[in-house]
Amino acid sequence: MISKTPEPPYYAVIFTSLRTDGDEGYAAMSEKMLQLASRAKGFLGAEWARNELGITVSYWESLEAIKCWKNDVQHTVARKLGKEKWYKAFRVRVAKVEREYGFDG
Amino acid sequence: MISKTPEPPYYAVIFTSLRTDGDEGYAAMSEKMLQLASRAKGFLGAEWARNELGITVSYWESLEAIKCWKNDVQHTVARKLGKEKWYKAFRVRVAKVEREYGFDG
Repeated sequence: MISKTPEPPYYAVIFTSLRTDGDEGYAAMSEKMLQLASRAKGFLGAEWARNELGITVSYWESLEAIKCWKNDVQHTVARKLGKEKWYKAFRVRVAKVEREYGFDG
Repeated sequence: MISKTPEPPYYAVIFTSLRTDGDEGYAAMSEKMLQLASRAKGFLGAEWARNELGITVSYWESLEAIKCWKNDVQHTVARKLGKEKWYKAFRVRVAKVEREYGFDG
């Protein structure tokens, strides 16, 4: 669902990916990583969708929190497997959210 | 596909949305807006996916370029229709991309 994030500034990690064919444990690992990230210090929320392209945006309090999550041991193992078998290509963009607004129907 | 963006810094507009039921002209307007944005000054690329949640990330050279696209007459009409019939809820986040890296298989 749409993440309830605080007043900016905060950070977004935009992860865009093209998957290889077949699951090969991908869905289970995605779920596990989301659960793990959700408990990480400074995590503010995450949003994801996939058609031909997959997009996951996670939100974080600070660059330090992003770095800490990147260095998590289980996350590091998952990223290695991602390069080996789950992703044809991906792009990671780290961005500082400066402004936010919305509409709630 | 994954956008080929230049060296940071540049800007991202992260648009996350929940759709109403039915198309009601949405797909045609989405296509039209993407085409129009692609020709806008300062546009660098766009990525999108939708399951329960829709995520569109567009990339821009500057905040001025984002503002100019926001003020485009056709885009303004489309946004009004979006609130009236296409979206249950949405969130717009404007963010400065500070770092980018990736993997190409």
